[in-house]
Amino acid sequence: MKKLEHIGIAVRNLEESEALFTRLLGIAPYKRETVESEGVITSFFELNGVKFELLAATSEESPIAKFLEKKGEGLHHLAFDVDGIEQRMSTLKEVGFDLIHTQPKDGADNKRIAFLHPKSTGGVLTELCEDKGLAHEE
Amino acid sequence: MKKLEHIGIAVRNLEESEALFTRLLGIAPYKRETVESEGVITSFFELNGVKFELLAATSEESPIAKFLEKKGEGLHHLAFDVDGIEQRMSTLKEVGFDLIHTQPKDGADNKRIAFLHPKSTGGVLTELCEDKGLAHEE
Repeated sequence: MKKLEHIGIAVRNLEESEALFTRLLGIAPYKRETVESEGVITSFFELNGVKFELLAATSEESPIAKFLEKKGEGLHHLAFDVDGIEQRMSTLKEVGFDLIHTQPKDGADNKRIAFLHPKSTGGVLTELCEDKGLAHEE
Repeated sequence: MKKLEHIGIAVRNLEESEALFTRLLGIAPYKRETVESEGVITSFFELNGVKFELLAATSEESPIAKFLEKKGEGLHHLAFDVDGIEQRMSTLKEVGFDLIHTQPKDGADNKRIAFLHPKSTGGVLTELCEDKGLAHEE
């Protein structure tokens, strides 16, 4: 992994949580973005190079709605910057990690993303992400 | 908050998890440290300035043992670097956050630490930490 890109935090109410994390972190969110395919609306904070992505569900079928129902609000996933996401997915699979996605998909923040199954990563839902501008066309 | 200092991850077996996160992150842990007062043994990784602290319980009364029993392995807390931890604790209390500790205590990695209650921080167990070398004596 190159670096920690962001930390995903599941929230019930985006506006209330934006206000809470503004008080906690001492910084304001800098953008919102809806990812239709994932059923989420996101809000981003950035502190010294690490992003915090608040995730609220836009439908009851959203993975975030299911997470909130099961575990409540809180830490949801870690996302890491990688170069060559297909190659990284393949390498991680070879050393025993389970991929939730077999191909990268579009995520928030102009990125291609793929998740590793938390059952294979010590319970830590892990996202690989690569800027689309830097993505290798294959 | 100045910056994200580390991410705490609760694990059942420190050696197995060190091997797993070495494969996942592509880096090796650089130190282990036991914090008797917290009933934990920790192992640290560092990726591009952000630390990952694996936390295993050393007794059944450890907060980590209780966390594992309730929630299983996975993301446990976020820790942020602050200057003047007493002042930050006081300021955060004033704006509505609940402190688990009323005074800073000794943590791993030569730090003074204090936790905010996750009920007041959107479910995210939050640690403030300050290097002892930089701590203000009061």
